[in-house]
Formats: sequence, C-alpha cells, structure tokens
Amino acid sequence: MFREGRMSVDGEVPKDIHRPDHPNSVGWVRPRKAILFEERPLELEAGGTLGPVEMEYEIYGQEPGPGGENVILICHALTGDAHVAGWDADPLGPIREYRRAKPGWWDQMVGPGKAIDTNRFMVLCANVLGSCYGTSGPSSTNPATGRPWGLGFPMVTVGDWARQQRELLSLLGLGHVKAVVGGSMGGQMALEMGLAYPDLMDDLIILSAGHRVTSQGLAFNVAGRHAILNDPVFNDGDYYGGPWPLSGLAVARMMAQITYLSEESMGFKFGRRLRGKESPDFTLTGIDFELESYLNHQAQSFVKRYDPNSYLYLTRAMDYYDAADKWGGGDMAAMAERIRARTMVVSFSSDWLFPPELCRELVSGMCLARRPISYVNVPSRYGHDAFLVETETVRRLITCYLKQF
Amino acid sequence: MFREGRMSVDGEVPKDIHRPDHPNSVGWVRPRKAILFEERPLELEAGGTLGPVEMEYEIYGQEPGPGGENVILICHALTGDAHVAGWDADPLGPIREYRRAKPGWWDQMVGPGKAIDTNRFMVLCANVLGSCYGTSGPSSTNPATGRPWGLGFPMVTVGDWARQQRELLSLLGLGHVKAVVGGSMGGQMALEMGLAYPDLMDDLIILSAGHRVTSQGLAFNVAGRHAILNDPVFNDGDYYGGPWPLSGLAVARMMAQITYLSEESMGFKFGRRLRGKESPDFTLTGIDFELESYLNHQAQSFVKRYDPNSYLYLTRAMDYYDAADKWGGGDMAAMAERIRARTMVVSFSSDWLFPPELCRELVSGMCLARRPISYVNVPSRYGHDAFLVETETVRRLITCYLKQF
Repeated sequence: MFREGRMSVDGEVPKDIHRPDHPNSVGWVRPRKAILFEERPLELEAGGTLGPVEMEYEIYGQEPGPGGENVILICHALTGDAHVAGWDADPLGPIREYRRAKPGWWDQMVGPGKAIDTNRFMVLCANVLGSCYGTSGPSSTNPATGRPWGLGFPMVTVGDWARQQRELLSLLGLGHVKAVVGGSMGGQMALEMGLAYPDLMDDLIILSAGHRVTSQGLAFNVAGRHAILNDPVFNDGDYYGGPWPLSGLAVARMMAQITYLSEESMGFKFGRRLRGKESPDFTLTGIDFELESYLNHQAQSFVKRYDPNSYLYLTRAMDYYDAADKWGGGDMAAMAERIRARTMVVSFSSDWLFPPELCRELVSGMCLARRPISYVNVPSRYGHDAFLVETETVRRLITCYLKQF
Repeated sequence: MFREGRMSVDGEVPKDIHRPDHPNSVGWVRPRKAILFEERPLELEAGGTLGPVEMEYEIYGQEPGPGGENVILICHALTGDAHVAGWDADPLGPIREYRRAKPGWWDQMVGPGKAIDTNRFMVLCANVLGSCYGTSGPSSTNPATGRPWGLGFPMVTVGDWARQQRELLSLLGLGHVKAVVGGSMGGQMALEMGLAYPDLMDDLIILSAGHRVTSQGLAFNVAGRHAILNDPVFNDGDYYGGPWPLSGLAVARMMAQITYLSEESMGFKFGRRLRGKESPDFTLTGIDFELESYLNHQAQSFVKRYDPNSYLYLTRAMDYYDAADKWGGGDMAAMAERIRARTMVVSFSSDWLFPPELCRELVSGMCLARRPISYVNVPSRYGHDAFLVETETVRRLITCYLKQF
C-alpha cells in the first residue's frame, strides 16, 4: 500500500536524480529495522506508554567515528520516510533484481560528493512514530489485539519523535552526532532535538520550519483532518478491512498542496491555462484548468501511498508543538538558551506555511540568548516547497556550513 | 432550509446592527419576486438558454427618479443574498408577527442616514442565478421534470448575472442607475456590468475584488468543489430527496473561511489559545484549540443555510471569470477602455483572496485607458473579510464618494 512512487530505473528518471550506478548515487539501499523500547516502554509526552516499537531507518556512507563526529541525522517531513537517498528495491524482493524502485526524497542532497557527502559522513534517517512507512503507527498491528491499532494508537508528539531518534542512536552506540538536519516537520523535530538533548549534536540545520505552526497552518491542518474524520467510511479509524477514507485524504492533500506552493509559483506553473484546449468547456464536474488537473493528480497519487490515520496523527503532533511554550514558558530567548548546537536556520521568501517572519522569531530568540546562529532568507518564488526545489542554493548553503567546522 | 441565521429581535443583536424600529434601520422588509426571460429565454454565455427565471430581490428607500439617478444596485457575494438591509420576517408568515428574523448582510451600510442613504436613494439587490435564496438555481424545480434541477441546471457565468441584473432593472423601468456597488464576487459582477453595459451607471464601486480570481483562489475553489463532488452522498447532484453532501460542503466552507481571514487576524482572534482549558487534551478527534472550534462552528452553521450544488455553480462562475480576457483580449487597458462609469476600487492590505496587487492591475488598466478611477488600499488586518468588517472606513469611503457627484 505505502510504497508507491516507484519508477523503472531503465526508463526516464528526473534529471537531478542519479541512477543507482552513477558515482554520485549511494546506489541500491534497503531499509533496516530496529526494535526499540522493548524492555522499558516509551513514556509518551501526552500520557501513556508504548513499546516495543518497530522502527524503520536507513543508513548510508561511512562507518561512524568513535564520538559520532561524522554522523548526520536527517529528520523527514510530514509525508516523507526514512528513504532519503539512493534507490530502494521492492522491500519484498531480493535487492537489485527489481526494476521498480524509488529514489530517495533528498537524493539531490545526500550521496558521494554531494552536500551531505557520504564519502565523509555516515547519514541516518528514521521514520517517525505514527507514520506508515515501517515504523509503528496506526496501521501497524496492535500486539494486544492482533489487529491494526487504528485510533487505538496513542497520541504521539514531536517530543516523542526526538526521544525515538535518540533511542535509535543509542542502540547504534551513538551518544553524539555531528549534525541534525530537517525541513518542515523535520525542522520542528530537529529543533526539538536541539532543545531536549542539547549536547547530542554539534550542529542543527533547520529549513522551512519554526518553533510552532502559524494560525493558518493550524487551520489548514484542522480542515484537512475534518475532511478525513468526516469521510463516511472513516469508521472511527477502523477502516483497514474495508474501503479507506480516501476521499477525505484526497481533499486534505489538495488543500495542503496549495499551502506548499506560492501564488507566484502557481501562477507561472499553471496560471489560468486550460488543459489542452483553447476555450473552456464550462464544466461543473470535469477538469478545465491545468491547475485542477495538477491538484487532482497530486491528490490521487498521494492517497495511494499514505494512510489517512497517519495523516491525522502527524498533523496533530505538528499542531501541538510549541517549542517556546514547552521550553521557555512562552519566551523565545529563554527557550533558545537551552540550545548548545551551532544552528543554521534557512527560510524562503515566498514560504507562507512556515514564513520568514516565523523563522526570524526563532533567530531573534537565539540572538537574544547569545547562541551561535546563522540565518539565511533565500529569495525564492517556490513557496514552502522551496526547501526541496531550490536544490542548488540549499546544496551550497549546507556544503559551506558543514565545511566550516 | 436556506433561511438560517435568524435571531430574536427582542434578544441580543450585534451592536452595529440596528433593530427594525430604530430610525437608522429600513425596518421590516420582505423579498420580492420577479419572473424574467418569460417570453424570450436568457441566452447563456456558456451555451444553452434558460427561461422563465424566477428572481428574488429587495428594494429599500425612495421611489426611483425618472432617469434612475437615485438608484443604487448592490451585488451580493458568494454566499450572500438579496437581503441587504433591515429585517426580513419569516417569508412564510405575515410580516411583523414573527419574532424570528434576520438582519440584512450589509445593514451597517444601507439605511436612513447611512453611507448608502435610503433617505436619498432607492437601493436594490437581487439574488444571482444558481444561488439558493429565491432565484432560480439547482435547488429550484425544473419545469420540464417537476423535480429539482440538480446538475441539470445550466452553467451560469458572471456575464449571465450581469445580464440578469440589467433585465430586472428593465422590468422595473430603469434604463439607468446612479451606481453599481459590490464586494468580492459582487465586485466581479459590478465590474462586469461596467464592461457589458458601460452606459447603465454613473458610478462603479468595487470592493475586495478583481478582474479574475488568483491562482490560489482558483485552487481553493477546486479543492472545495472536490470535497463536495466526492462526498459519497453527492449522487451526481441529485440528493434533494435524501441525505445531502454536507460533509463535503462543511470542508469547503472551512477552507474558504481560512481564505477570508488573514494570518494576523486569526492570530489575534484565536492564535494557539485552547478552548476553555489550561493544557491540551492531546485529542486526535476532539477539539482543543479555539480556532478549531471557530472553524467547526462556521462550517456547521453554513451547511444549514446553503445548497452544495449552488456552491459548485457560483464558485465555478467565479473561476471562469476573466474580464481582461473577455473584454480586452488579455489586455487590461483595452478592457478598461470600455468602462464609462467613474470607478472606485477599494482593496485591503491583508486580503490575500483578492490581494491589493490584483486590484492594482485593474486600477493600472483604468489609468492607462485614461478612465476616471479612484483607488484606496485600506490598511487592515482583517483579510478578505475586511470589506464587511472595516465598516467605519468603508462607510466613510462610500459616503464621501457618493457625495462628490
């Protein structure tokens, strides 16, 4: 269910993605599994416990140095997974034999000779609790019932994710890493790690993220969840044996997709262009505009690869996260004082989901707390997606930053 | 079904709404009905014909002068109706006897001694084709079948609405009016009237509207319609005898509501405040934030008063409207050259549905075409809703503008 987006390695591959045999690709990769919180369950921030927890992660590059000084932990975004770089074959089949595979979501940034250089670093990424890509979540089996957890899965928070990441590092014998890097929801998680475990990392790199979601961000998440929760087949989240609430999820994704772009990028990508026609059909139920076709396509491909319940859990965790509240009693500087890592914050001018003004609140907090902070607001028209789309700029920023120290 | 929002006139009434017996209220009003296009059906812009058409409208104030020099036509917004001012009693009962009534949507602006002064003017507003407030639309009876039209109702456009308004004026013996005034969708309609019937009015007042929707505006309409069209009980629009697709409509409204506010107004109205509690419940399906409660309330009260099919028709008409394309072959100045009326355009700084930049394209076109144009960008934090919320500023702008001539 959740492994869509595969492509033929022999066929057409996007131009900035290297094929597995290219010297700048980490090549074929396979997800790894860990069992965490087996002896002592995870005490969840929102109450209750969870354990054992299955966790999917991927590792690329070098063996870790004794003090973890060459380890980089990457935190994925809302709909991302542990598969950051290279190509993963169908997890059910023997590696390399399957032609249908999927390139990592940040392959442009991670690999031999790339910004996060696997010739220099060990790179690690783990799927978060509540997600649907191999880590325990609502679609996993509840050992107590032998059935999928559904809404019986406990509420998880950004704090729990940070704890989960640290636990995995411990299991791998890593008490310290060079850097924690994340964008969007992954940036929230990276920030939380810097606050919860200030001595765990030397550097924090936070892209397109803030210490909380904006009011609009919260509102769009509310509306997206409303669409899923009110889908008539939602069945209190217990839909795994029947039809899935994919109508609701499609609407949630369509709406979210709008928040990932900017008015300008939508304007030049699609504007009011009609799809393959000179004049409109004046259709009420059909598709006339390119933009409609795009949003439909985005929604339809998303519902093939995501669990509606996971969408509920992860967006809710984002909503509840308020780092200033949690760590500084509402005071940004008091919060920032906890951070020991050198920190780089990158915002993008047209991002309105995590807008530059919000990122600057974090930056100002760091300045007031006299913490080492670098901040770049990248001029870009790509909106929130810029952190994934402005590859050349992000590549240079990360390369320079990691070379400094 | 469509007459919610009523309140007890004896009970609490919002402070800027006058009770029906107040000297600044137009008092009790009752909608009027007209039958248009009875002899010759309306030739629709998107093809096909429609007729006869039932049309609901309201009239307040003075008798019209012989040349219509004291007549002001108001155009309503997407979810508005003909009931602009005063209090309408339950349309089924004898007037004045019913305690449950509804104040007009622009009562702050229209009445004796108000900006649009009914001591001076005759004020007229008519519900648009496709809507669900008394004018023919998908919920009306199709005379050919004796059943509700549903999606059998023909596609209507902003051009058809302009035509429909002019037809009503003709029926009332009015070949000319003093001014046409509208906000949001009503502003699109007012602009269209200025372009299609340049000699019909002396003045045009266009608030929070543009010659087209933005790409984001189009995208949100697409997502909203998607929610309705994919509601499992939508039944191709033929739901009048069964359950209505209100889940879809609720999501569409929630999303639209976000676009009516600004990040700033959401921030100060709600921010991250919890609803009546100190710490969150960490609920996945319940309500924790004030903002959630607000969006839910908005959606739930909307679905009681609006027909999902009408939402489809009216948003689609907005999407298709492109005045520059229609009247100027894509050239704003060529379009603006058609306009004869003195025109005032008012935008609001934080409106991101019809943003100031879009309004300024229209204003620039008017300047290039050397047409008489006044333009005000009102500093406001209320987003798109500002045209209804910034009553004091709008009142002064309209009062001054109408007193000039």
